[in-house]
Amino acid sequence: MDEMSFKNKAFLHGGDYNPDQWLDHPDVIDQDFKAFANAKLNAVTLGVFAWDRLEPAEGEYHFEWLDEMFDRAAAQKMNVILATPSGARPRWLAANYPEVLRVGEDGQRNQFGERHNHCYTSPIYREKVRQMNQKLAERYGHRKNLILWHISNEYSGACYCDLCQAAFRKWLQAKYQTLEALNHAYWGAFWSHEYTDWAQIEAPSPRGDQNVTGLNLDWRRFVTDQTIDFFDAEVAPLRAVNPDIPVTTNFMGGNPPESDVFDALDYQKFAQHVDVVSWDSYPNWGNDYESTEQLAMKTSLMNDTMRSFKHQNYLIMENTPSKVNWHQFNHAKRPGMHSMASLQEIAHGADSVMYFQLHQSRGASEMFHGAVISNRGGTQTRTFRDVAQLGTQLNQLKGVVNTHRKVAKVAIVFDYDNMWALADARTYANASKDYWKTIQDHYRYFWEHDIPVELVGVNDDLTPYQLVIDPMHFLMRPEFAAKLKAYVQNGGHLVGTYISGVVDGDFLAYQGAGMPDLITTYGLKVTETDTLYPSQRNSLRIFNQKYAVRDYCDLVQLTTAKALGTYGEDFYADTPAVTCNQLGRGQADYVACRTDADFLQKFYHQLVQRLQLQAELPIQKKTTKVAIQVRENDTTHVYFVINYSHEPTLVTVATPLTNALTGQTEQGTQAIAGYGVKVYRN
Amino acid sequence: MDEMSFKNKAFLHGGDYNPDQWLDHPDVIDQDFKAFANAKLNAVTLGVFAWDRLEPAEGEYHFEWLDEMFDRAAAQKMNVILATPSGARPRWLAANYPEVLRVGEDGQRNQFGERHNHCYTSPIYREKVRQMNQKLAERYGHRKNLILWHISNEYSGACYCDLCQAAFRKWLQAKYQTLEALNHAYWGAFWSHEYTDWAQIEAPSPRGDQNVTGLNLDWRRFVTDQTIDFFDAEVAPLRAVNPDIPVTTNFMGGNPPESDVFDALDYQKFAQHVDVVSWDSYPNWGNDYESTEQLAMKTSLMNDTMRSFKHQNYLIMENTPSKVNWHQFNHAKRPGMHSMASLQEIAHGADSVMYFQLHQSRGASEMFHGAVISNRGGTQTRTFRDVAQLGTQLNQLKGVVNTHRKVAKVAIVFDYDNMWALADARTYANASKDYWKTIQDHYRYFWEHDIPVELVGVNDDLTPYQLVIDPMHFLMRPEFAAKLKAYVQNGGHLVGTYISGVVDGDFLAYQGAGMPDLITTYGLKVTETDTLYPSQRNSLRIFNQKYAVRDYCDLVQLTTAKALGTYGEDFYADTPAVTCNQLGRGQADYVACRTDADFLQKFYHQLVQRLQLQAELPIQKKTTKVAIQVRENDTTHVYFVINYSHEPTLVTVATPLTNALTGQTEQGTQAIAGYGVKVYRN
Amino acid sequence: MDEMSFKNKAFLHGGDYNPDQWLDHPDVIDQDFKAFANAKLNAVTLGVFAWDRLEPAEGEYHFEWLDEMFDRAAAQKMNVILATPSGARPRWLAANYPEVLRVGEDGQRNQFGERHNHCYTSPIYREKVRQMNQKLAERYGHRKNLILWHISNEYSGACYCDLCQAAFRKWLQAKYQTLEALNHAYWGAFWSHEYTDWAQIEAPSPRGDQNVTGLNLDWRRFVTDQTIDFFDAEVAPLRAVNPDIPVTTNFMGGNPPESDVFDALDYQKFAQHVDVVSWDSYPNWGNDYESTEQLAMKTSLMNDTMRSFKHQNYLIMENTPSKVNWHQFNHAKRPGMHSMASLQEIAHGADSVMYFQLHQSRGASEMFHGAVISNRGGTQTRTFRDVAQLGTQLNQLKGVVNTHRKVAKVAIVFDYDNMWALADARTYANASKDYWKTIQDHYRYFWEHDIPVELVGVNDDLTPYQLVIDPMHFLMRPEFAAKLKAYVQNGGHLVGTYISGVVDGDFLAYQGAGMPDLITTYGLKVTETDTLYPSQRNSLRIFNQKYAVRDYCDLVQLTTAKALGTYGEDFYADTPAVTCNQLGRGQADYVACRTDADFLQKFYHQLVQRLQLQAELPIQKKTTKVAIQVRENDTTHVYFVINYSHEPTLVTVATPLTNALTGQTEQGTQAIAGYGVKVYRN
Repeated sequence: MDEMSFKNKAFLHGGDYNPDQWLDHPDVIDQDFKAFANAKLNAVTLGVFAWDRLEPAEGEYHFEWLDEMFDRAAAQKMNVILATPSGARPRWLAANYPEVLRVGEDGQRNQFGERHNHCYTSPIYREKVRQMNQKLAERYGHRKNLILWHISNEYSGACYCDLCQAAFRKWLQAKYQTLEALNHAYWGAFWSHEYTDWAQIEAPSPRGDQNVTGLNLDWRRFVTDQTIDFFDAEVAPLRAVNPDIPVTTNFMGGNPPESDVFDALDYQKFAQHVDVVSWDSYPNWGNDYESTEQLAMKTSLMNDTMRSFKHQNYLIMENTPSKVNWHQFNHAKRPGMHSMASLQEIAHGADSVMYFQLHQSRGASEMFHGAVISNRGGTQTRTFRDVAQLGTQLNQLKGVVNTHRKVAKVAIVFDYDNMWALADARTYANASKDYWKTIQDHYRYFWEHDIPVELVGVNDDLTPYQLVIDPMHFLMRPEFAAKLKAYVQNGGHLVGTYISGVVDGDFLAYQGAGMPDLITTYGLKVTETDTLYPSQRNSLRIFNQKYAVRDYCDLVQLTTAKALGTYGEDFYADTPAVTCNQLGRGQADYVACRTDADFLQKFYHQLVQRLQLQAELPIQKKTTKVAIQVRENDTTHVYFVINYSHEPTLVTVATPLTNALTGQTEQGTQAIAGYGVKVYRN
Repeated sequence: MDEMSFKNKAFLHGGDYNPDQWLDHPDVIDQDFKAFANAKLNAVTLGVFAWDRLEPAEGEYHFEWLDEMFDRAAAQKMNVILATPSGARPRWLAANYPEVLRVGEDGQRNQFGERHNHCYTSPIYREKVRQMNQKLAERYGHRKNLILWHISNEYSGACYCDLCQAAFRKWLQAKYQTLEALNHAYWGAFWSHEYTDWAQIEAPSPRGDQNVTGLNLDWRRFVTDQTIDFFDAEVAPLRAVNPDIPVTTNFMGGNPPESDVFDALDYQKFAQHVDVVSWDSYPNWGNDYESTEQLAMKTSLMNDTMRSFKHQNYLIMENTPSKVNWHQFNHAKRPGMHSMASLQEIAHGADSVMYFQLHQSRGASEMFHGAVISNRGGTQTRTFRDVAQLGTQLNQLKGVVNTHRKVAKVAIVFDYDNMWALADARTYANASKDYWKTIQDHYRYFWEHDIPVELVGVNDDLTPYQLVIDPMHFLMRPEFAAKLKAYVQNGGHLVGTYISGVVDGDFLAYQGAGMPDLITTYGLKVTETDTLYPSQRNSLRIFNQKYAVRDYCDLVQLTTAKALGTYGEDFYADTPAVTCNQLGRGQADYVACRTDADFLQKFYHQLVQRLQLQAELPIQKKTTKVAIQVRENDTTHVYFVINYSHEPTLVTVATPLTNALTGQTEQGTQAIAGYGVKVYRN
Repeated sequence: MDEMSFKNKAFLHGGDYNPDQWLDHPDVIDQDFKAFANAKLNAVTLGVFAWDRLEPAEGEYHFEWLDEMFDRAAAQKMNVILATPSGARPRWLAANYPEVLRVGEDGQRNQFGERHNHCYTSPIYREKVRQMNQKLAERYGHRKNLILWHISNEYSGACYCDLCQAAFRKWLQAKYQTLEALNHAYWGAFWSHEYTDWAQIEAPSPRGDQNVTGLNLDWRRFVTDQTIDFFDAEVAPLRAVNPDIPVTTNFMGGNPPESDVFDALDYQKFAQHVDVVSWDSYPNWGNDYESTEQLAMKTSLMNDTMRSFKHQNYLIMENTPSKVNWHQFNHAKRPGMHSMASLQEIAHGADSVMYFQLHQSRGASEMFHGAVISNRGGTQTRTFRDVAQLGTQLNQLKGVVNTHRKVAKVAIVFDYDNMWALADARTYANASKDYWKTIQDHYRYFWEHDIPVELVGVNDDLTPYQLVIDPMHFLMRPEFAAKLKAYVQNGGHLVGTYISGVVDGDFLAYQGAGMPDLITTYGLKVTETDTLYPSQRNSLRIFNQKYAVRDYCDLVQLTTAKALGTYGEDFYADTPAVTCNQLGRGQADYVACRTDADFLQKFYHQLVQRLQLQAELPIQKKTTKVAIQVRENDTTHVYFVINYSHEPTLVTVATPLTNALTGQTEQGTQAIAGYGVKVYRN
């Protein structure tokens, strides 16, 4: 699969459709398809959770209704994304094979209930899924309007049954080979924790061990691997029938209140198994604890993160046209917000706007989750009009398809192992570790100044970037330290921070001064890290100013680095707080403490000036509440100018550009409405 | 049973007495009975939790001590209320028949412990209770001083054992007849949740399903029905022996911090099975987060609620003369408060003031719960004096017995199904649904202005009322919408609010514009409901003023209604926020948003003027800290004038009235002490 | 064992050392021992948690490495404290004998995991521990550098397995002899809770009973007794081999956020079984919610508490040279703080400064707990230098060894039974009981004024003290009331407070006016206790001033006492709030309400004047941020002058004294650095 996910001639616009809820009301289905046309929908996701309609009793398959949906879709030129139904098993399956029910960390097996509640290891569940997927592949794998497989739904969670415990042991055996190696990694010689038999290994549990940090980390890795293994098993029969249909599964992330990355599965790893990344995006627009601009920044970061997993365009598989039903406060999108939010994601490289769901459920868990066709009002709603309007806009943007996000010169390092280990580190302060928030803090300047940023993992190539930012890299392998060193020596500019290079890949502490390559890179040794209580502050003296410092201060001893700024207070006053180190043709800066935003803004401002990373755009804005993203290909440049505020504002178009939503040429001062969007192209 | 609960010549004054604690100390019991006389007690409740003294080993009964208590009571003309002891089973019963122990929602069976901890379904428990009740009925059912059966104690809770699960399935089968009907109601076609066998049904559980809202609602209904079924089984042997002794069970409600109605059992339904409603009233007088006046308003509402279950006089079965031991802060009643609080309940239609308990326990769970005779001080206490003083007052009020609360022209609709469904609705914001608080908010104006209010259920007749207020009626059946329409058409005045008529009795969403009868009634369609974050505000422009709006805003489209007020802000500024609709001979107002109290005060003020609902009283007060309630019969009018403030105040008696507590005639300006009460009669 | 714990010629300086973590790296161990010498360490604790290195498979013992450690220690004249390894059992032991795994209060058996996780009752575990301890005693019991046995580690927790339940029943049978007696104590006649068979007894549990306060209290007592019984069983084989080696086990206490006493085990009782008290001290120096001075006061109280358990010198068995890894915020000790904190403990009677641990673990649970030799930096750290500096200081203080804390004339009563009962009392307000904080509040004046205080238990002799303070003595036995009376009659001065003498040793309420001896002692009867809500205040009028009163007010009726102060508000305004009673040759004051600190300061100030309890010191300070503690023996007086502030200050040395840390004679004004310490001797 190349950079463009589907070489579509249009962005996908549609969503989850579960006619299985109205099979006894064909009139509803008739009206729904008419409504799809009216809303300019061109894609429909079928089959999510539909297992009991497809196989109501073991071995008794009913595909007629699904056939009809394919036909109806085809009749109005809608693409179909077909889901495997494994996200919710039927009751008969649980009744016949209790082993498919997940076991909790307390060792108790669940009853039937909810979704995503099955054991990933169970051979029977895998076999039943294989049979179903095989049937689906055979029946629909060559349908012309099938464009994508949607595997299961929002994989997550873990099972602690005996089968999973055994699989975990096998996974550990493959990894460590010997108990000696495992005991060393888990530092079992302390607390009499050495295993003398593989059979003694149990997953972390509140009834057993929760403080063996190496074990905790391996369990998280195993859960990802076992989930991927299950995913791969789901995919096998599909690919066997038609290898040309790409596969995805819908990832999660960006949820309130932190708008942070999903942390239960290593998506960087998982993404290597899907053909295209897709995700479900549910920001809580209009909340009362942050500005729309702030939430937009965080949501842009989440989009950049999703794009970064494969460094290619991605899909929005779910979002809501109005509001969800599971936020703490289920606040309606204001007029304009749906278009604003949807085009934000397109601007970052999404090639779709898909909804959960097209027709709202009448009852049970999801009956209040916003949908294109509502219980209250049907299609005679503000929501439906918003969707139809977006449909029109997406049609007007057809020319933008086959572009990708402007290539970034700035990268931020993000790593799941590090996130997990840092969260589990029994030191610092759990209340203030804030790994993802730190990434947001470093991202902010670039977003506000319309400078594209790519997220990179530890296995990614750093050489394409002029600036690499590597915040709070607590668990860092020597290989990555070497990569950082090489990057700088070859002319890169690196910015690192406090709490980096503390433990290795086994979660064992580095000894002495730490990794030589890291010391060489930053030109300093960290002697200790001071953790501040919430109300305590130090200060940073730099740029002839004083900035507030909170939470964490690395105390450093310079080898080759120079101090750019020093601490203002306490027993380490006057020691280096921000440093720079010339190495080879590059430079590595070390921000040894956590500062408030104003320092980072100033710091990155001077760095951007120096490295000439400024966005060069034919459009000037007057406020950071407007963000401008660029999609492009060899011939086309498209500028998404989005106003993340309820107040209108002005932008200046320096050279004549085509307004892609109207076809008009515009130049000079242009007004943008509150929550308004302008899309210009050359 | 008629309007007066017992045709007593006096209010009942007494309480729970457990001499079973001092059977080895007859001197204590001697002194207790002397103290009862000194405190002017005329009723004693015996036998609560006394099972192991009545049947210390299986089949070995000991009634001698209870006989003696009946005799002692008779000797000093005290009535006896006799409890069935099922609220706390003896240890031998649990040891011999473990099935009587309740099973938790996690599936684990409890050990012996606490109270109210038995399975309501267990045939063995029912049989043991039947045997005991049969014995009690035979031995005491014709005792002259037996006036009432007190069935068990404060029924509540649920059991999840296999017997209960089976009973639940049977209950569902009787309700739905077919799995198709049940699957439709639970919207099982989504998430592959369709049942294919009745045996697959399990009660909601954290280990299973908690998001099938229809199932959750049915489980709550079943728990009520099964509890009532157990209650009916307890009553059967009693009635068989002497059908003339009325039965009750003590309800709960009004507890801190919200002073809200008890929500675990549908008391509206349960009340139809008792002969007289009784309840346990424990307001936290003197707390620091609301004024005494506010708490008095909420407590008046609770009394009106209890009265409304059968629309007849009721009993206070428990209260404390001093303080309880289970509030967060166990603060002593200030001087005067006990009389103030007791006469408040009499004023609302209570025919008793009963205490838990008459003699304080020396040890274990309840040893610090306030009692008439205390551990510390015995009868030489402020508390005992307060009780004796109230005894004197109640004697002076003998003439008030055989009156009932003044008939109300104003009704507020309250419904358990609606309360449960709204609480479980996966939308809006759990933090701000506040159903009972909303009822309190609407009740407040009338209470402050001494206008009687009746609570009505959905099965009640609305025609007696000039004004019906129906707040947040989220789950509403079509039959009730029709009833509202007929009520208005026939000249009634209806006030409804935001979030009404959203789901039907199965918890399924109404489609399209909603119930036609509701649209006709209010003359409008709700197009969407906006949920605000806690700090967000809209405003309401009405009466040439601007009022703050928070939490919820229905956006409406008028059909026949007219806007009385409009929103002041946001994208729905200038659209209707308060409306009125003329229909037939009546009018229906719709308050589409949640406002602060000042709007409701103004709104109801003009409505009361217009409908001429003002209280016409021969006593004028100067402050809303004084409330005046009226009890009456054909010939007598009794005015309870209560000062809910620690500050003295004045009232004006317009025409000469008898002070019922002194026998004096009073007229003109009269002083009322802090927490003071005046009772006047014509 | 006499007053001096070891007749050492030096304070012990060292800590936990687990070379078992580096047996495969002899170079590490070589370096470690060199570092010990550099840090002036003279003691090493070996074997804590080392079971699986000592017995890696059942019956297969490996002592060679431990032999070597003894030899290495001996070679550099280091003492050895040898731990029994029972705090963490090996995996094979749990695998072979699952009964050793603890069962939770929910009845579920734990998996292997964590530490301190074994059943104390299990005969098999006791036998395995006996075998191990026997081996250790035989091999090391006569080693010359063995100075102390360290039994297990931080005993705590409870097990609810069938063996423990049976032991609990046996314990109860021994205590009560008959079920009648037990039923009376548990007040089982109420709620049908009478036991009819000993087999019906179960430990308190959320699945069973949690409200039988007598049962709860007995369970806590049993847990202490069973723990001690296990401890005694551990000690038996050690003493059998060499009765001359003293034994200890490390107690806990003083942890954030309250710096309160450990409440899971009755250390007053446990201490009678150890030869010397030792404890693990981890104050969170430098936190942001209290001043260093406040935390120092609380930490001094904890040290006084530990000393009071045997009224003799004690050991610091663990502390951190830098920071721990389990505080909410793991904040580094500032320069000077390590010496300040260590000498504070020496000043109060500690004879050691021992660390957890000497060489930091590389992995797992404790890898970030501060240690003498760190992962980061090894010995090239601020921490190592702090330790070495303290080593030097301790060497300079050799002459101070063989002194004890100056004998106190002031005692505060503290009792575990009372603490447990008060915490479990179902009355007052759980949010404001604050028993330990109340002790801190009463201790504060004396600490600020350098007046030594001893904690005393209810079995202690009160006659040595001029002033006894007995705060919130809720559970008080008649014997202790008699002791208080005798104390006062014989000339003692007693101060008691609200909420005293409420229940007896069985947790049964005293009847009537309460214990005659207590009434005689204080000359008053308490008629009721008023519990205030958090924002409510009364006031106390005394000393011609008005002080704020909060939380609790006893209302009292004087018999022979006189009022010193009266309440200012509410219905008990003008009644006595602080009283004094002359009795025999002494006086008993009763502080009937909880006041803010300023009253207590004033109250104790006048009392200290009157009783002439002022500290008479040759050193004057200018601020309460400096505290002065005295250690002495017949010939020597040593003054520890410690500045608990980051700001330097001055003291005046009135007569020439030797600065024990420099050998210089000093007189007149002397500067003390921030967190600085001066030690003077005559």
